[in-house]
Amino acid sequence: MKTKFALALLAATLATGAQAQVKVEDAIKWRQSAYGAMGWSMARIKANIDGTYNKDEVIKSANVIQAIANSGMGALYVPGSDKGKGWADTRVKPALFTDGPKVGKIAGDFNAAANEMAKVAASGDVAAVKEAFGKLGGTCKACHDDYRTKQ
Amino acid sequence: MKTKFALALLAATLATGAQAQVKVEDAIKWRQSAYGAMGWSMARIKANIDGTYNKDEVIKSANVIQAIANSGMGALYVPGSDKGKGWADTRVKPALFTDGPKVGKIAGDFNAAANEMAKVAASGDVAAVKEAFGKLGGTCKACHDDYRTKQ
Repeated sequence: MKTKFALALLAATLATGAQAQVKVEDAIKWRQSAYGAMGWSMARIKANIDGTYNKDEVIKSANVIQAIANSGMGALYVPGSDKGKGWADTRVKPALFTDGPKVGKIAGDFNAAANEMAKVAASGDVAAVKEAFGKLGGTCKACHDDYRTKQ
Repeated sequence: MKTKFALALLAATLATGAQAQVKVEDAIKWRQSAYGAMGWSMARIKANIDGTYNKDEVIKSANVIQAIANSGMGALYVPGSDKGKGWADTRVKPALFTDGPKVGKIAGDFNAAANEMAKVAASGDVAAVKEAFGKLGGTCKACHDDYRTKQ
């Protein structure tokens, strides 16, 4: 159901969603910002797993990822934003805008993994956090592999 | 209490916190990202207030701001990051690193306003959302006025 919902949301957004008035350069800058904030949070969780574990810091980081994962970021993939510059040139591949079902599946997996990450972070079970972190990272990588150009 | 806590956290961080190993360029990029993600969320809430109100979209946006506000971003103001480039050159003024009590007060006000924003977003009371949004924007402006260079 989550996947179907994400797919429907993405399809609606990529067509003529309510966010169509967002400027391409803003949309690219905002999605780069959202990924950057999640990148920081992932780095923080990793530092806690690899070093001294601080439960509160992991919870805060997981909450940021969860909130962004559930924010409806698909709305920022406005028509025409397959090219352009936000903070920097976008690295998205045009295929993201046309691979509806596959992208919907990846988005759904990511959402589920982000929600699970926040849940286990709150529990403070470090082994479970490690596992959830690995799964979450896998869903990030799945999208990067297919839909983000290499640097 | 919130203000005192934020201040203590900031003071600890600005001294020799656990995050001191974060590279200056990463710290700047990550805080610019976090502010960018909040900028998107503020723009979305404003669009909902000014146009057709979508309760779910406002909740999602407020949740992003709340999660970032409570993430402990003070950790990203690492020593030496008063200058440098993340996505772009930092616009922070050096005074942010030395105005401990004043910065702590602003950070505490911002946290409180972000938590209130998320609370009223969930209620769906549009008049209350409008008021909370204005207060929240005021706390952003308070910091920008004193601690961010004009563009």
